[in-house]
Amino acid sequence: MGVSYNNLDKTAAFGALKKAEKVDLKKNLTADRLKKASLSVGGGLTYNYAAKSVNDEIVSLLQNLADEQELIAKYKELLNGEIINVGEGRKVMHQMTRGQQGDAVVSEGKNLRDFYRGEQEKIYDFVGKIHSGEIKGSTGKAFDTVCQIGIGGSDLGPRALYLALCHYTEPVMDAAFISNVDPDDANAVLETVDLETTLFILVSKSGTTQETLANKNFVVEMSRKAGIEGFDPAKHLIAVTSETSPLAKSDDVLAAFFMDDFIGGRYSSTSAVGGAVLSLAFGESVFEEFLGGAAEADKAALEGDITKNAALLDGLIGVYERNVLGFPSTAVLPYSQALNRFPAHLQQLDMESNGKSVNRKGEPMPYSTGPVIFGEPGTNGQHSFYQLLHQGTDIVPLQFIGFKKSQIDFDLDYEGSSSQAKLKANLIAQIVAFAKGSANSNPNKNFAGGRPSSLIYGDRLTPRALGALLAHFENKVMFQGFCWNVNSFDQEGVQLGKILTGQVLGGGDMDEALIALKEIMEI
Amino acid sequence: MGVSYNNLDKTAAFGALKKAEKVDLKKNLTADRLKKASLSVGGGLTYNYAAKSVNDEIVSLLQNLADEQELIAKYKELLNGEIINVGEGRKVMHQMTRGQQGDAVVSEGKNLRDFYRGEQEKIYDFVGKIHSGEIKGSTGKAFDTVCQIGIGGSDLGPRALYLALCHYTEPVMDAAFISNVDPDDANAVLETVDLETTLFILVSKSGTTQETLANKNFVVEMSRKAGIEGFDPAKHLIAVTSETSPLAKSDDVLAAFFMDDFIGGRYSSTSAVGGAVLSLAFGESVFEEFLGGAAEADKAALEGDITKNAALLDGLIGVYERNVLGFPSTAVLPYSQALNRFPAHLQQLDMESNGKSVNRKGEPMPYSTGPVIFGEPGTNGQHSFYQLLHQGTDIVPLQFIGFKKSQIDFDLDYEGSSSQAKLKANLIAQIVAFAKGSANSNPNKNFAGGRPSSLIYGDRLTPRALGALLAHFENKVMFQGFCWNVNSFDQEGVQLGKILTGQVLGGGDMDEALIALKEIMEI
Repeated sequence: MGVSYNNLDKTAAFGALKKAEKVDLKKNLTADRLKKASLSVGGGLTYNYAAKSVNDEIVSLLQNLADEQELIAKYKELLNGEIINVGEGRKVMHQMTRGQQGDAVVSEGKNLRDFYRGEQEKIYDFVGKIHSGEIKGSTGKAFDTVCQIGIGGSDLGPRALYLALCHYTEPVMDAAFISNVDPDDANAVLETVDLETTLFILVSKSGTTQETLANKNFVVEMSRKAGIEGFDPAKHLIAVTSETSPLAKSDDVLAAFFMDDFIGGRYSSTSAVGGAVLSLAFGESVFEEFLGGAAEADKAALEGDITKNAALLDGLIGVYERNVLGFPSTAVLPYSQALNRFPAHLQQLDMESNGKSVNRKGEPMPYSTGPVIFGEPGTNGQHSFYQLLHQGTDIVPLQFIGFKKSQIDFDLDYEGSSSQAKLKANLIAQIVAFAKGSANSNPNKNFAGGRPSSLIYGDRLTPRALGALLAHFENKVMFQGFCWNVNSFDQEGVQLGKILTGQVLGGGDMDEALIALKEIMEI
Repeated sequence: MGVSYNNLDKTAAFGALKKAEKVDLKKNLTADRLKKASLSVGGGLTYNYAAKSVNDEIVSLLQNLADEQELIAKYKELLNGEIINVGEGRKVMHQMTRGQQGDAVVSEGKNLRDFYRGEQEKIYDFVGKIHSGEIKGSTGKAFDTVCQIGIGGSDLGPRALYLALCHYTEPVMDAAFISNVDPDDANAVLETVDLETTLFILVSKSGTTQETLANKNFVVEMSRKAGIEGFDPAKHLIAVTSETSPLAKSDDVLAAFFMDDFIGGRYSSTSAVGGAVLSLAFGESVFEEFLGGAAEADKAALEGDITKNAALLDGLIGVYERNVLGFPSTAVLPYSQALNRFPAHLQQLDMESNGKSVNRKGEPMPYSTGPVIFGEPGTNGQHSFYQLLHQGTDIVPLQFIGFKKSQIDFDLDYEGSSSQAKLKANLIAQIVAFAKGSANSNPNKNFAGGRPSSLIYGDRLTPRALGALLAHFENKVMFQGFCWNVNSFDQEGVQLGKILTGQVLGGGDMDEALIALKEIMEI
């Protein structure tokens, strides 16, 4: 490989960033800066960093850091199929599911762009047959609902995206989701769907995810118990998995669509994992628009000048906030009810990717990596945790998202303004309040300000905008991982819990604490 | 008042805690300790702190801290009606909505227990008439749905509690919630309800909450536009507000039920704010059980011995983790799908109460106060952000919640165990994995351990258990606020945003940044 991987603290730029004078955000946020500190994300979205604690000098040092850590070159190596996921010895190919920004990548004789695109084409073909009624349920009724059975990346991204679009356009099929192994989850969801008209999608790359297999069994057994004459569960079930998984050739399913080990769960929304459920819900054209938006953001992320590359700049400002300013968490605050579960998806994307303590070589790192990510939609959050954001003892960097227009084209004026105008007025008021604060002789009413935020905004939350938004954050997290020198594409931290769970359920040698807890919880 | 309010860092106990030897959690978590480090929460729940980074010495120092900061005496003063919310000059009376643990409190000639109880009795009377069909909608149809219009404390708590119980028992009326001023929220919810059979509850203590009034207007105008013959919006709307609010005597509503300024929004779930919607949804007996559970936890919180007072010990361990161990956030992890929005409620409860930088006298504090709170249900979270919790560079203290039995009494075995057994096995495996870790020669697969957690568990998530769980956290946050010497009962930090929003919508003098942002967002 032509690039070299080094720890953040070994770079000259990081040393310079630590020495650089800090920005007084109260003075920094001017009308002039708001106009200049603005760049395209792709998908019609704009990233504005005027209310971040950076000035031209710091941005210039961040450019040095990007260059020194060869962030764009690393992105290109990823696109071109290098083994970026070193721990697991895998390529990282999720961008390839929505376009090809680099060279052709061939693996085991298979052109990967053709493979991913081919699976999506097969999905569209299948979706056409479901929507037209050519394929019906086992009792002869047309399918009107799709229910995804999956957890983690097979759930959070697709669910957040479904919710983000289900009021943009009338779904062709309603979607439901079963994720938790808690039987209350499957039971509750199954109460809401009509088994005869529901198509279930079993999503597990390995085909061995405990929760997902247990829930598949739950659905199949429940449908048998329902005793519907002529009902055949296998005609209500499709799989999204890898070609080597036991599900791939199972007689239990009507059809199987594939992804592979080069696509991590949290990066799989644009693969068949999101592609099947979202195409079934919204049809081909909506999903194509969504993929197009994501591809635009992927392309924009190739730009070497950080003042023209939103994902890169966003990522580097995050590193500056984490490692120079020392802020331990970041809040994601979409002023759009449709994005109400998008922060939960970003929580996985970011924390699972960069919540690591060792670098790509397995050496412990002497600096902080991925922050805690949390968030809720505005204005709801304002009436919840914003108190701490404004007046708490820790500073939490903020990532606002907003749109000029609402998704549903109906609004009303009340006291001289529409609801959408109120929503936007609240959003911009918060940006200024956090940055500038407000002095008050009553210390309870005093706002210190100096609390940084960025804003991603667009005209309306369309499928294209949503695709770009998703890819922006994926690419931001990727650049941060490169900068911290971590492998953002494995998740070994989830393994120990699985092993101990197996000991509890399977017997065998257990730690004394585990034995005592087993007794306490009556397992 | 007989107690004195002092900063945490002025106490001898805090100095001693900082000097005390830290606990090696890997050695500390034994079967013996799991059996001993256990105490009742109330409501049939147990708090176990065996996997916390405390030993007998530290617990003894925490007892000294509790005594020095007079935490129980302060709780008693609160119960007895002292002006605990000093900034706003108000009593703090939410515990009185579910029982009376202290002296009678009279305000302006009104016995407050009688007042709160009287309102709840009026609600039950009204609920009886709705459920029996004595009161019907304006077109003669019986009500089958209740829709709460409120935001913040008028939304998060009641919504989380509704979701926590809606599969425990078949709701008498389904509940929906409109909170966000984003018109997409009201539009989407109104698509799901039948206006003729829906009773709306307008919830705003002041009667002036911008979002709630805009959404009330939205609902009324939409119902007019629906053009249903004979439809009268005023016969589909009740209010929960204070007696002095403009809504109290409005002709726009069918009935009004009251709370007062002594109950903060985030503490209002056991007042009429939660009482109306939850009683309408589930009936009197379920809500009474819920109140009873909360009263049990309130009573348990009076105990002076911290090894017998779960809320007090939980709160003090949190202070130790925040101010001695230096952990900036806490995750709440219910292994119960029914509690899927409970962390969002606790996020408000905790962050809005203790996210403060000045003490009760208005002096800046030289130590950290409330942490960032976030969480999602398990096992979902395991496939999301647990990677960072296990292997990230920051330690995040964890608060697990779990139940021996599921809510819905139907489960299936798969590969030798039920879904509920799998859920519980995952829960206890995580506790041990976080505490003890696991050494591995592959650094990617190495788990350092030493990551503390506590467990609140019970037999089943009943209304009584839920009431105790809610009150436990309210009381925990209260004790922490006393310990930090902050006023946990105001929220001045939300005011500046409201003022600036008013400037944007109303015109007048605006900061240049606000003017520029207004143009950018096309307001």
